[in-house]
Amino acid sequence: MQQSPSNLEPAVAARLKRDAAGLVAAVVQQHGTGQVLMVGWMDDEALHRTLTTGRVTYWSRSRAEYWRKGDTSGHVQHVRSVALDCDGDAVLVTVDQVGPACHTGSLSCFDGRDLGAAADGTA
Amino acid sequence: MQQSPSNLEPAVAARLKRDAAGLVAAVVQQHGTGQVLMVGWMDDEALHRTLTTGRVTYWSRSRAEYWRKGDTSGHVQHVRSVALDCDGDAVLVTVDQVGPACHTGSLSCFDGRDLGAAADGTA
Repeated sequence: MQQSPSNLEPAVAARLKRDAAGLVAAVVQQHGTGQVLMVGWMDDEALHRTLTTGRVTYWSRSRAEYWRKGDTSGHVQHVRSVALDCDGDAVLVTVDQVGPACHTGSLSCFDGRDLGAAADGTA
Repeated sequence: MQQSPSNLEPAVAARLKRDAAGLVAAVVQQHGTGQVLMVGWMDDEALHRTLTTGRVTYWSRSRAEYWRKGDTSGHVQHVRSVALDCDGDAVLVTVDQVGPACHTGSLSCFDGRDLGAAADGTA
Protein backbone atom coordinates (compact mmCIF):
# COMPACT_ATOMS: atom_id res chain seq x y z
CA MET A 1 0.00 0.00 0.00
CA GLN A 2 1.08 3.58 -0.53
CA GLN A 3 2.93 5.19 2.36
CA SER A 4 1.55 8.33 3.89
CA PRO A 5 3.36 10.43 4.83
CA SER A 6 6.33 9.52 2.66
CA ASN A 7 9.92 10.48 3.27
CA LEU A 8 10.02 12.73 0.21
CA GLU A 9 11.51 16.16 0.91
CA PRO A 10 8.64 18.58 1.63
CA ALA A 11 10.09 21.12 -0.83
CA VAL A 12 9.82 18.57 -3.63
CA ALA A 13 6.47 17.20 -2.46
CA ALA A 14 5.04 20.71 -2.55
CA ARG A 15 5.85 20.96 -6.26
CA LEU A 16 4.01 17.79 -7.28
CA LYS A 17 0.68 17.91 -9.05
CA ARG A 18 -0.62 14.41 -8.46
CA ASP A 19 -3.51 12.76 -10.29
CA ALA A 20 -6.61 11.47 -8.51
CA ALA A 21 -4.67 8.36 -7.47
CA GLY A 22 -1.81 10.44 -5.98
CA LEU A 23 0.59 9.66 -8.81
CA VAL A 24 2.82 11.47 -11.28
CA ALA A 25 3.99 10.03 -14.60
CA ALA A 26 7.61 8.87 -14.79
CA VAL A 27 9.18 8.90 -18.25
CA VAL A 28 12.30 6.78 -18.41
CA GLN A 29 14.96 7.55 -20.96
CA GLN A 30 18.24 5.76 -21.69
CA HIS A 31 21.24 7.95 -20.92
CA GLY A 32 23.33 8.56 -24.00
CA THR A 33 21.02 7.25 -26.71
CA GLY A 34 17.98 9.26 -25.62
CA GLN A 35 15.65 6.35 -26.31
CA VAL A 36 12.42 6.54 -24.32
CA LEU A 37 12.18 3.13 -22.66
CA MET A 38 8.91 3.20 -20.73
CA VAL A 39 6.44 5.20 -18.70
CA GLY A 40 5.66 4.24 -15.12
CA TRP A 41 3.93 5.87 -12.16
CA MET A 42 5.26 7.20 -8.88
CA ASP A 43 3.71 8.33 -5.66
CA ASP A 44 5.73 10.46 -3.25
CA GLU A 45 7.45 7.49 -1.66
CA ALA A 46 8.39 5.88 -4.98
CA LEU A 47 9.90 9.19 -6.08
CA HIS A 48 11.74 9.49 -2.79
CA ARG A 49 13.24 6.02 -3.22
CA THR A 50 14.18 6.77 -6.82
CA LEU A 51 15.91 10.01 -5.77
CA THR A 52 17.84 8.49 -2.88
CA THR A 53 18.70 4.88 -3.72
CA GLY A 54 19.98 5.06 -7.30
CA ARG A 55 17.39 2.51 -8.44
CA VAL A 56 14.12 3.38 -10.17
CA THR A 57 11.10 2.48 -8.05
CA TYR A 58 7.50 2.74 -9.25
CA TRP A 59 4.04 2.43 -7.85
CA SER A 60 2.33 -0.39 -9.74
CA ARG A 61 -1.22 0.67 -10.50
CA SER A 62 -2.25 -2.86 -11.47
CA ARG A 63 -0.68 -4.62 -8.48
CA ALA A 64 -1.07 -1.72 -6.03
CA GLU A 65 2.42 -2.13 -4.64
CA TYR A 66 5.91 -0.66 -4.90
CA TRP A 67 7.95 -2.11 -7.67
CA ARG A 68 11.71 -1.68 -7.87
CA LYS A 69 12.53 -2.34 -11.48
CA GLY A 70 14.76 -5.34 -11.94
CA ASP A 71 14.18 -7.07 -8.60
CA THR A 72 12.33 -9.89 -10.34
CA SER A 73 13.58 -9.62 -13.92
CA GLY A 74 17.13 -8.53 -13.32
CA HIS A 75 16.49 -5.66 -15.73
CA VAL A 76 17.66 -3.00 -13.33
CA GLN A 77 17.44 0.73 -14.03
CA HIS A 78 20.36 2.68 -12.56
CA VAL A 79 19.39 6.31 -12.00
CA ARG A 80 21.43 9.01 -13.74
CA SER A 81 19.15 12.02 -13.19
CA VAL A 82 15.59 12.95 -12.30
CA ALA A 83 13.91 16.19 -13.37
CA LEU A 84 10.43 17.47 -12.64
CA ASP A 85 8.44 19.25 -15.34
CA CYS A 86 7.11 22.80 -15.17
CA ASP A 87 3.69 21.88 -13.84
CA GLY A 88 4.80 19.10 -11.53
CA ASP A 89 2.82 16.19 -12.97
CA ALA A 90 5.67 14.28 -14.63
CA VAL A 91 9.30 13.38 -13.99
CA LEU A 92 11.94 12.53 -16.55
CA VAL A 93 14.31 9.85 -15.30
CA THR A 94 17.48 9.13 -17.24
CA VAL A 95 18.92 5.71 -16.55
CA ASP A 96 21.41 3.07 -17.47
CA GLN A 97 19.10 0.22 -18.37
CA VAL A 98 20.28 -3.35 -17.84
CA GLY A 99 18.74 -5.63 -20.47
CA PRO A 100 15.36 -4.85 -22.03
CA ALA A 101 13.09 -2.37 -20.24
CA CYS A 102 9.90 -4.03 -21.49
CA HIS A 103 8.48 -7.17 -19.96
CA THR A 104 7.82 -8.41 -23.52
CA GLY A 105 11.59 -8.50 -24.12
CA SER A 106 11.84 -5.46 -26.35
CA LEU A 107 14.32 -2.77 -25.34
CA SER A 108 11.58 -0.13 -25.14
CA CYS A 109 7.91 -0.58 -24.29
CA PHE A 110 7.13 1.44 -27.43
CA ASP A 111 9.11 -0.73 -29.86
CA GLY A 112 7.04 -2.12 -32.71
CA ARG A 113 3.82 -0.46 -31.58
CA ASP A 114 3.60 2.42 -34.04
CA LEU A 115 0.04 3.62 -34.58
CA GLY A 116 0.59 4.90 -38.12
CA ALA A 117 0.06 8.61 -37.63
CA ALA A 118 -0.55 10.78 -40.64
CA ALA A 119 2.33 13.17 -41.21
CA ASP A 120 1.69 16.88 -41.18
CA GLY A 121 1.86 18.10 -44.77
CA THR A 122 3.16 21.45 -43.58
CA ALA A 123 6.10 19.98 -41.65
CA MET B 1 -15.78 18.82 -22.95
CA GLN B 2 -14.52 15.39 -23.84
CA GLN B 3 -16.22 13.77 -26.80
CA SER B 4 -17.89 10.42 -26.37
CA PRO B 5 -17.83 8.45 -28.52
CA SER B 6 -14.73 9.76 -30.23
CA ASN B 7 -13.69 9.08 -33.80
CA LEU B 8 -10.69 7.03 -32.73
CA GLU B 9 -10.40 3.71 -34.56
CA PRO B 10 -12.03 1.01 -32.41
CA ALA B 11 -9.00 -1.25 -32.84
CA VAL B 12 -6.80 1.43 -31.25
CA ALA B 13 -9.36 2.44 -28.64
CA ALA B 14 -9.57 -1.19 -27.51
CA ARG B 15 -5.85 -1.17 -26.70
CA LEU B 16 -5.97 1.89 -24.41
CA LYS B 17 -5.76 1.56 -20.66
CA ARG B 18 -7.12 4.92 -19.53
CA ASP B 19 -6.82 6.41 -16.05
CA ALA B 20 -9.83 7.33 -13.93
CA ALA B 21 -10.23 10.52 -15.96
CA GLY B 22 -10.21 8.63 -19.27
CA LEU B 23 -6.71 9.76 -20.22
CA VAL B 24 -3.39 8.29 -21.30
CA ALA B 25 -0.03 10.02 -20.89
CA ALA B 26 1.55 11.48 -24.02
CA VAL B 27 5.34 11.77 -23.99
CA VAL B 28 6.59 14.17 -26.63
CA GLN B 29 10.09 13.76 -28.01
CA GLN B 30 11.95 15.87 -30.57
CA HIS B 31 12.69 13.92 -33.74
CA GLY B 32 16.41 13.67 -34.37
CA THR B 33 17.78 14.93 -31.06
CA GLY B 34 15.69 12.61 -28.89
CA GLN B 35 15.11 15.33 -26.31
CA VAL B 36 11.97 14.75 -24.24
CA LEU B 37 10.08 18.02 -24.52
CA MET B 38 6.98 17.58 -22.38
CA VAL B 39 4.28 15.25 -21.12
CA GLY B 40 0.62 15.94 -21.87
CA TRP B 41 -2.61 14.01 -21.63
CA MET B 42 -4.92 12.62 -24.30
CA ASP B 43 -8.38 11.18 -24.29
CA ASP B 44 -9.53 9.10 -27.25
CA GLU B 45 -10.52 12.11 -29.33
CA ALA B 46 -7.27 13.99 -28.71
CA LEU B 47 -5.35 10.88 -29.77
CA HIS B 48 -7.56 10.57 -32.85
CA ARG B 49 -6.84 14.17 -33.84
CA THR B 50 -3.11 13.69 -33.21
CA LEU B 51 -3.08 10.58 -35.39
CA THR B 52 -5.02 12.09 -38.28
CA THR B 53 -4.22 15.81 -38.50
CA GLY B 54 -0.43 15.97 -38.17
CA ARG B 55 -0.69 18.31 -35.20
CA VAL B 56 -0.40 17.25 -31.57
CA THR B 57 -3.66 17.76 -29.67
CA TYR B 58 -4.05 17.27 -25.91
CA TRP B 59 -6.79 17.21 -23.35
CA SER B 60 -6.03 19.97 -20.86
CA ARG B 61 -6.74 18.65 -17.36
CA SER B 62 -6.56 22.14 -15.83
CA ARG B 63 -8.77 23.85 -18.41
CA ALA B 64 -10.91 20.79 -19.25
CA GLU B 65 -10.74 21.43 -22.98
CA TYR B 66 -8.93 20.27 -26.12
CA TRP B 67 -5.70 22.06 -26.72
CA ARG B 68 -3.93 21.95 -30.06
CA LYS B 69 -0.36 22.88 -29.24
CA GLY B 70 0.71 26.10 -30.94
CA ASP B 71 -2.71 27.57 -31.71
CA THR B 72 -2.15 30.31 -29.13
CA SER B 73 1.65 30.35 -28.76
CA GLY B 74 2.68 29.53 -32.31
CA HIS B 75 4.84 26.75 -30.87
CA VAL B 76 3.37 24.07 -33.08
CA GLN B 77 4.23 20.38 -32.81
CA HIS B 78 4.29 18.62 -36.17
CA VAL B 79 3.71 14.89 -35.74
CA ARG B 80 6.36 12.49 -37.00
CA SER B 81 5.18 9.27 -35.34
CA VAL B 82 2.97 7.98 -32.54
CA ALA B 83 3.52 4.67 -30.74
CA LEU B 84 1.52 3.06 -27.95
CA ASP B 85 3.28 1.27 -25.12
CA CYS B 86 2.89 -2.39 -24.18
CA ASP B 87 0.19 -1.85 -21.58
CA GLY B 88 -1.70 0.90 -23.40
CA ASP B 89 -1.45 3.69 -20.85
CA ALA B 90 1.06 5.93 -22.64
CA VAL B 91 1.91 7.10 -26.14
CA LEU B 92 5.26 8.31 -27.42
CA VAL B 93 4.87 11.12 -29.94
CA THR B 94 7.88 12.21 -31.95
CA VAL B 95 7.57 15.70 -33.36
CA ASP B 96 9.21 18.59 -35.07
CA GLN B 97 8.82 21.30 -32.45
CA VAL B 98 8.52 24.93 -33.55
CA GLY B 99 10.05 27.20 -30.91
CA PRO B 100 10.12 26.21 -27.24
CA ALA B 101 7.78 23.46 -26.06
CA CYS B 102 7.45 24.90 -22.57
CA HIS B 103 5.20 27.83 -21.74
CA THR B 104 8.03 29.19 -19.60
CA GLY B 105 10.15 29.65 -22.72
CA SER B 106 12.53 26.75 -22.20
CA LEU B 107 12.87 24.25 -25.00
CA SER B 108 11.79 21.36 -22.77
CA CYS B 109 9.44 21.45 -19.77
CA PHE B 110 12.15 19.54 -17.86
CA ASP B 111 14.98 22.01 -18.49
CA GLY B 112 16.59 23.38 -15.34
CA ARG B 113 14.35 21.37 -13.02
CA ASP B 114 16.73 18.63 -11.93
CA LEU B 115 15.86 17.14 -8.55
CA GLY B 116 19.40 16.12 -7.64
CA ALA B 117 19.05 12.36 -7.58
CA ALA B 118 21.71 10.31 -5.86
CA ALA B 119 23.62 8.21 -8.38
CA ASP B 120 23.66 4.46 -8.01
CA GLY B 121 27.07 3.47 -6.71
CA THR B 122 26.82 0.19 -8.62
CA ALA B 123 26.21 1.84 -12.02
